[in-house]
Amino acid sequence: MDRQRIMELVRAEMPERRWRHTEGVMETAISLSRRYGEDPQRAELAAIIHDVAKFWPIERQGNAIRDNGLNLDVLDYDKELWHAVVGAWVAEHDFGVTDVGVLDAIRYHTSGRRGMSKLEKIVWLADYIEPGRDFPGVDAIRALSEEHLEKAVLAGLDGTIGFLIAKGKRIYPLTIEARNGMLEELNA
Amino acid sequence: MDRQRIMELVRAEMPERRWRHTEGVMETAISLSRRYGEDPQRAELAAIIHDVAKFWPIERQGNAIRDNGLNLDVLDYDKELWHAVVGAWVAEHDFGVTDVGVLDAIRYHTSGRRGMSKLEKIVWLADYIEPGRDFPGVDAIRALSEEHLEKAVLAGLDGTIGFLIAKGKRIYPLTIEARNGMLEELNA
Repeated sequence: MDRQRIMELVRAEMPERRWRHTEGVMETAISLSRRYGEDPQRAELAAIIHDVAKFWPIERQGNAIRDNGLNLDVLDYDKELWHAVVGAWVAEHDFGVTDVGVLDAIRYHTSGRRGMSKLEKIVWLADYIEPGRDFPGVDAIRALSEEHLEKAVLAGLDGTIGFLIAKGKRIYPLTIEARNGMLEELNA
Repeated sequence: MDRQRIMELVRAEMPERRWRHTEGVMETAISLSRRYGEDPQRAELAAIIHDVAKFWPIERQGNAIRDNGLNLDVLDYDKELWHAVVGAWVAEHDFGVTDVGVLDAIRYHTSGRRGMSKLEKIVWLADYIEPGRDFPGVDAIRALSEEHLEKAVLAGLDGTIGFLIAKGKRIYPLTIEARNGMLEELNA
């Protein structure tokens, strides 16, 4: 399916406000790709699709995960994680995306994971710092994103974990693995 | 081996300052046991032994873990975790402790784990808040420890994770599991 058609279908799945967020992620992902030597078209495609399932009723998200045997362990964790797994499935089955790297960038755009590819880091970070995001510390991470990709992702993962602790929410083990892996990369 | 002899042997393994910490953990573990209905003698025994391997040269700790096939995964993480695993082994093999609950309270006194027993929680918490400990927030957790065991352990685990993030150190997955499990217990 071509880029324009995918954009129309994704946009129809969400409120206008969320589409503006998606455009911010597209723009940021393209910019990070140029800076760090990733293919901007792959990053943009992942960005376009990443939140396609975010506004599905949560039961529909859960059923998609169960019925298709997708990363079942997320069902035990925060529902915010579910749409990423479902989004990768929609990308493959409804939009015909075959680039496994793009599918993984969608699948892990919320949790992260150990051993993230450059594309996964870019999409994860773009989602965290796109221009519409406004939370304490985001400007520091935006600045860091212009200097060092892994350090910026690490700072974002630290912020995510701190946020979950402050909120008394459980932490998905893959997110800890993502952070530990990023530290290992930086210290290697 | 009797309590007195074990105390002498443990004391000989550490500087006087650390033995005073051990006495603080013993005292606090007994007090928490009386408050929350655990056997104070079991808690005291775990407290006496918990740091027995803390001042072993790190190579000796690593060798004990490798040679005896103890929780090998800690070797990939912070060396601060190693002495707990080794301590449980010393308790069993050198001191003849057969109470698996006491051995587990020693083994998990630094990391915690999902599904901690009451004894494990008490020893973990006593180590965190004994009277010699002095760090920002410890008094709040001491106060909480008089109200609710699981809430105090959760606050301590949160503090530990926040400390590791601030220090840029990796987080042992079992510690996250411990915290997630404590939240589940509290929300059940």
